[in-house]
Formats: sequence, structure tokens, C-alpha cells
Amino acid sequence: MKERKCVGIVDTTFSRIDMGSIAVKRLKELLPEYTIIRHTVPGIKDLPGEAKRLIDRGCEGVMTLGWVGAKQVDKYSYIALSVGLTMLSILTGKVIVDVTVHEDESSDPRELRKIAIERTRAHAENLATMLKEGGEGLVKKAGLGIRQGYEDVGPL
Amino acid sequence: MKERKCVGIVDTTFSRIDMGSIAVKRLKELLPEYTIIRHTVPGIKDLPGEAKRLIDRGCEGVMTLGWVGAKQVDKYSYIALSVGLTMLSILTGKVIVDVTVHEDESSDPRELRKIAIERTRAHAENLATMLKEGGEGLVKKAGLGIRQGYEDVGPL
Amino acid sequence: MKERKCVGIVDTTFSRIDMGSIAVKRLKELLPEYTIIRHTVPGIKDLPGEAKRLIDRGCEGVMTLGWVGAKQVDKYSYIALSVGLTMLSILTGKVIVDVTVHEDESSDPRELRKIAIERTRAHAENLATMLKEGGEGLVKKAGLGIRQGYEDVGPL
Amino acid sequence: MKERKCVGIVDTTFSRIDMGSIAVKRLKELLPEYTIIRHTVPGIKDLPGEAKRLIDRGCEGVMTLGWVGAKQVDKYSYIALSVGLTMLSILTGKVIVDVTVHEDESSDPRELRKIAIERTRAHAENLATMLKEGGEGLVKKAGLGIRQGYEDVGPL
Amino acid sequence: MKERKCVGIVDTTFSRIDMGSIAVKRLKELLPEYTIIRHTVPGIKDLPGEAKRLIDRGCEGVMTLGWVGAKQVDKYSYIALSVGLTMLSILTGKVIVDVTVHEDESSDPRELRKIAIERTRAHAENLATMLKEGGEGLVKKAGLGIRQGYEDVGPL
Repeated sequence: MKERKCVGIVDTTFSRIDMGSIAVKRLKELLPEYTIIRHTVPGIKDLPGEAKRLIDRGCEGVMTLGWVGAKQVDKYSYIALSVGLTMLSILTGKVIVDVTVHEDESSDPRELRKIAIERTRAHAENLATMLKEGGEGLVKKAGLGIRQGYEDVGPL
Repeated sequence: MKERKCVGIVDTTFSRIDMGSIAVKRLKELLPEYTIIRHTVPGIKDLPGEAKRLIDRGCEGVMTLGWVGAKQVDKYSYIALSVGLTMLSILTGKVIVDVTVHEDESSDPRELRKIAIERTRAHAENLATMLKEGGEGLVKKAGLGIRQGYEDVGPL
Repeated sequence: MKERKCVGIVDTTFSRIDMGSIAVKRLKELLPEYTIIRHTVPGIKDLPGEAKRLIDRGCEGVMTLGWVGAKQVDKYSYIALSVGLTMLSILTGKVIVDVTVHEDESSDPRELRKIAIERTRAHAENLATMLKEGGEGLVKKAGLGIRQGYEDVGPL
Repeated sequence: MKERKCVGIVDTTFSRIDMGSIAVKRLKELLPEYTIIRHTVPGIKDLPGEAKRLIDRGCEGVMTLGWVGAKQVDKYSYIALSVGLTMLSILTGKVIVDVTVHEDESSDPRELRKIAIERTRAHAENLATMLKEGGEGLVKKAGLGIRQGYEDVGPL
Repeated sequence: MKERKCVGIVDTTFSRIDMGSIAVKRLKELLPEYTIIRHTVPGIKDLPGEAKRLIDRGCEGVMTLGWVGAKQVDKYSYIALSVGLTMLSILTGKVIVDVTVHEDESSDPRELRKIAIERTRAHAENLATMLKEGGEGLVKKAGLGIRQGYEDVGPL
């Protein structure tokens, strides 16, 4: 029975960093009893649809990995992505953790790479916690000013 | 029977203030006959999905506690959050009270902390009123220019 | 039978003018055969959910009375409000008339008050016409450049 | 049987040009076998709800005629209108053709009037084609840089 | 049996390049076992509705080909288009690949033409891969910084 639980990962060909592989690796460590299914789509606006298809295949949770360009139109696409994922979570009740890296977060490729890797790993941990412990799992970290991909800013 | 009524609270690890604990404390005082369930998610875009899961667990109302960053992309995430919660309220008919603190409301940490605490408490009172008295409960305060986290500006 | 028809009004505690009372008074004059139910919520993002609850209670039409702040984030909340009410009207087929006053429409409190009162009254008349005569009721005013709260600008 | 087919038109009292009458006249010429139902609502945010009601009455297609003000808040209302109509078309599968004139398209009333008239007529033709010939009907005009209310810009 | 599988293409009369024909040609090469149905609508806001109608006709996937004007209001229409397609993909679970060319991507008509042609072809290949191989099909290209219509930027 256990081996039939599954979690989905969707990333993009648009991304400049292979966040999907990072997520697969980390989720395998964190959720050994789950089957990890990884899919890839062209860009961020395709993520909600693929996440839906993974949920229809039985996944209990999905991690979406988006890379957002620097232009204003990319930001509008980000709105559509975000509304779409929010609606998907409302309509299905499934845990969907969205990891987005914005290409204009840094002009330094190494920095951007570091952000993408750490953000993906941190959110893989969030997803694993939410699947294993439910919504109570992250209460211990509530209000701590946690950031993924950056230093935590801490509580005020 | 009474003890089976429940109200949900969802806050975030992104927040720099533990608004969830403030909400739990105040709602316990205001709604002693309700079970208070508190969940935590990573960030604001995760709030609608968790609110949905709490409604599916039977909660009659949900308080979402969001902390919004200062960047433009955070504001776009705020749009997705707001559309998501509005849709959830339409689809379920449940009372959802959203408390959002924007990190750029003040550059003074003490001021920001004061805003977050008072806004959370004030909206806990709004939620309790709406659950106990229904939509008529707040009519006595209609049009009074009430602000949560700031001084009321009063009627014109 | 007649007395069981109902129309709902939802306003906010955020508003600086008691638009709900203005709406109740005008709708009672215009729709004496309807029960008028007035509810109040904290702010504009809460309007669609309360409108939904009034529709679930059997209201044939709902008037929402929103007061929108002057900050950019308030305008984003206005988008969520507007998308929410539009979706509610699509999902239920009910007549929902939205009255919104933007705090930055005037820096003169008397002017703002005049706008709010007249806009509320004018839209109460629109709602009454649409409920009594259906969608044909306003055809006689089509294309006339009618404004609520301001002088009509008239047709070109 | 034929005479029971219907097409709906919804315009607004906000508009400064009676686009509804132009649409009725043109659609009667183009679709003599259809009943044309014309409704009017206050403003653009009311269009999706009325279009829904016309679809519920049995209309196979709907033409919405919106007049958008020049202020930023009017543009936000335009987003809500557009999302609403898009959602309505997805949820019902009906052909909905939206004609929007933006008050700031021209400062010359005659020019604006010309835009509104020609755009309405051109989209009435689009709607008629789509109802009579289905989605294949406009293939012959694909990629031709066609504009409604302006000169066609033509293909590149 | 095989010949009854179908894929839909929707383009616009607003577009200045006949992207539909390019898509038809490429998809016929890539998906010889599919019936290709091509429809055309006036503009981008009409794409989600027509895509829905093609899905209702049995299409397993749809390619939408949008041409977005350079004005801010066109960008708002792009948001509505994007939210609409995202919602359609969530509600139906079908593969929808959106190709959008923005008129302001280049002031050189030849460059714009090249972008439109190459982007359409590249996304036709994406759609074919996703239909034939499912969501796993594009995994081999994940994180490679692939761009459609431009040189790939490559991984960081």
C-alpha cells in the first residue's frame, strides 16, 4: 500500500537550472515511502495544468518549479501561474508547493544558482513536512521570518 | 455537540511575527465553545489551499494570517492570495477573514509589530462576531471608518 | 409569497460613510414587496463571500457597498473584489450590483460624501429596475453616458 | 424551430454611445433566423453576469459591449470584466464576443464614435460568422492583422 | 480508432502572421495519426472559449496562438487570456500549449516574423511530445534555458 502513495514534481524547459533533479533527490531522501513522479513542461503557465494531471494520477502533493523571466510580461505570466495554482489547491484540496525563481533576483549566475538550489531544497522539506505531519507540521516554524534561497530574516 | 464546532487559523513561516499564536489566544477567549485548529504554511500563496483543507475538516470559519513582502512580485502574490480567498469564500460560503500585514507598512519594527498584533486581534473579534451573530453582527460598526492595526479614521 | 422575495445589502466597517443605511432606505422605497437583509463585513475582500451567503439564503439580488483605500495595495484588493463578484454573478446568475467609492476620488470629505450617497442611491435604482423589469429594464438608458455619484457625462 | 435560436446583446448605461442599437441592427441583418435579445446593465463589471443570464435563457452566443473609462481603476475593472467573460466562455462553451471601447482611445468625440460604431459592426459580423459557420468560419481571415474600429494593419 | 484522436489549433484574425498555418503544417508532420482541427477567433480573449469548444469536440490537446498588442490594455488582456487558459487546463486536465507573440518584442517586422514562426514550430513540437510521451517527454530538456523564437539561453 505504502508504495502507492505518490508525490509529483513539475519543472520547466525554460528554467536555466535543473531544479527538478534537485527536488527529486531531496524528496527521495525525505519521502522514501512515496513514488516520486517528475514531469516537465515548457514554461510557468503550463505548470498548473500538469500539476492537475499529476493529481488526477493520484499524487497527494505536487511541487511546481517555476523560472520567471525579468520582463513585465513575465510578471503577468507569474500572476496567471499563481492564480492557477491557488485555484487548483482550492478545487482539489491537495498540497501544492510552488517554488519560483525570478531571473532578476540576481545578476550573478552563481548567486541565482544558489538561490534556486536552496529554495528548491527548502520547499521540498516543507512539502515533506506537510505531507507527513499535515498542516500542524510547520507550526513550530511559524512567524520566524523564514526565507527559502536567502538567509532567514528572523522574527521581529 | 458544541465542542465539535471548529474554527481554523492559518499563518506562515514567512511572517516575521507569530500572528498565529496571537490569533489562537484571542479566539480561545472569544469562542470558548469552538475547537481552534492552527496550521502553518510556507507563504501567502499557500494560505487558500490550507484554508480549504480546514474547511474540509469541518471548520465553520477560517482566519488567514499573511505577511506580504515589499517587492512588486510580493504584491502580485498578494493578488493571487486575494483572488484565491475570495473564490474559496464563494465556493464554500464559509466565513474567511484575511489578515495581511505588508512589510512596507512601516520601516520601524516596533510599529510593524504593533500593527500585526492589533490587526490580528481586531480581525479575531470580527471573525468571532460573524460566527456568533452572522452577517448582522457587524452592522452596528458599518461605515465607521474602522481600521485594524491603525487608529480608526472614523466616519466622514 | 411576495414577502418572501429578498434582496441583500452588504457594506463594510472600513467605509467612512454609512452607505448601507442609504441603500436600505432607498431599496425599501423602491422594492416594498421585498425583504431587505443588510449585512456588514470588515472590508471589500469580504464582500463576495457575504454576498454568496445572502444568495444562499434566497436573495434574488445583492448590492455590495465597497470603500476602497487610496494605496496601490487597496487597488489590488479592488481587483480581487471585482473578480470575485464577477465570478459570483457567473456561478449563481443572480443580479449583483457593486457600488465602490474610492477614497482618492476626492480630497474634499463633503464631495466624497456626496459621491457615496448619490452613487448608492443611483445603483439602488439600477438594482430595483433589474429585479422588477429584468435585463430589458435599463435598455432605455443605454449609451447615455450615465455616471453614479457624478453628473452624467451624456452621450457623444 | 429556427426562430427559437437566440443571440444576446448586453450593453451599458455608462457607455457614451448606444452600441447596443448598432449591434441589434447589424445582427438582425446578419442573423435573420435568430431572436435578438438586448439587455442593458450599469457598467462593464455587470456584463458577465447578464451574459450568463442570457445564456441561461438559451442564447447560443452573446455580444457584450463595454465602455471603459480612462482612469487606472477603470482598467482594473477591465481586467475583472475580461477574466469574467473568459471564465464564462470556459464554463458554458458559448460564443461570447466582447466589444470594448476605451474612452482614452481618442480625445476626439467623432473619432471615438467612429471607433465604437465600426468595432461593434465588425464584431457583430464575427459573432454571426462563428454562430453560422463555427470556429472554421474565421480561418480565412486568420493572421491578417484585422482591427475592429481602426484600419486593418495587415499581415507582416 | 487512431484517426479519431484529435488536436486543436486556435489562432486569431488580430495576428499579423498566419501562425495557424505554420502550426497545422508542423503538427501534421509530428502527429500524423491525429486529426488536426484549426479554428480562428477575433482576438486573444476569445482563445480560451474556442479551446474549450475544441476540447468538448474531443481534442486531447490544444495549441492557442495569440498575438498581443503593444499597449498596456493589451497586456491586461494578456492576463485575462493567461488566467483563462490556466483555468481551462485545470478544469479539463487537457494539454494546452499557449504561443504568444507580443507586437513589441521587436520593431523589425522580419525579426517579429521569425520569432512567430520559430515559436510556433517549437511549441508544436512541445505539444506533440507531451501528447505522445506524456509529462515525462520533456524531462530531458528540463532546466536547459530553452527559449521559443529566440536562441536558447542555456543552463546557468
